Amino acid sequence: MPENTQPIERKPENIVYIGKKQTMNYVLAVVTQFNNGMNEVSIKARGNAISKAVDVKEIVVNRFMPNLQEKSIRTSSEELTNEDGTKSKVSAIQITLVKG
Amino acid sequence: MPENTQPIERKPENIVYIGKKQTMNYVLAVVTQFNNGMNEVSIKARGNAISKAVDVKEIVVNRFMPNLQEKSIRTSSEELTNEDGTKSKVSAIQITLVKG
Repeated sequence: MPENTQPIERKPENIVYIGKKQTMNYVLAVVTQFNNGMNEVSIKARGNAISKAVDVKEIVVNRFMPNLQEKSIRTSSEELTNEDGTKSKVSAIQITLVKG
Repeated sequence: MPENTQPIERKPENIVYIGKKQTMNYVLAVVTQFNNGMNEVSIKARGNAISKAVDVKEIVVNRFMPNLQEKSIRTSSEELTNEDGTKSKVSAIQITLVKG
């Protein structure tokens, strides 16, 4: 597909993926995205990182940016292929915050 | 307080608290509550158990009761007092499912 068929105003990347770093790294990432002008930021996590995603959301809203509003919290189930070829299901969460 | 001052139609307990048992124990608890006639069941968890709460919801809905609807997912922050008297904050989640 030629490049010019893509929409001109492409939505910028505003997703913070939660991994193995310390919680405050992700808190800072979310706050930075908003301070850089994003109107909406999503926090995404899978498996055991889901708990950390909720921590990040609570710390961002309660300690740093109390005017943010929770737009949505969605959960889903994703299928992963293991190294031996078998498949596992893993839960995922997406928490979307918007400026109030 | 005399017993007869309590409201007659007290709302039955329909909350499943997620702890250290295996995920399927809680899946079975939720399914059983609905099969016993509950119209609405909440799954509650704190801290690291939050990930398991999402697993429970996904397994209940995707594998056992596809007609359930998600009424709400709420997160919060609770304060715990440690053994040494200091206080810690812990995140919590409440996922409420209703019959569709």
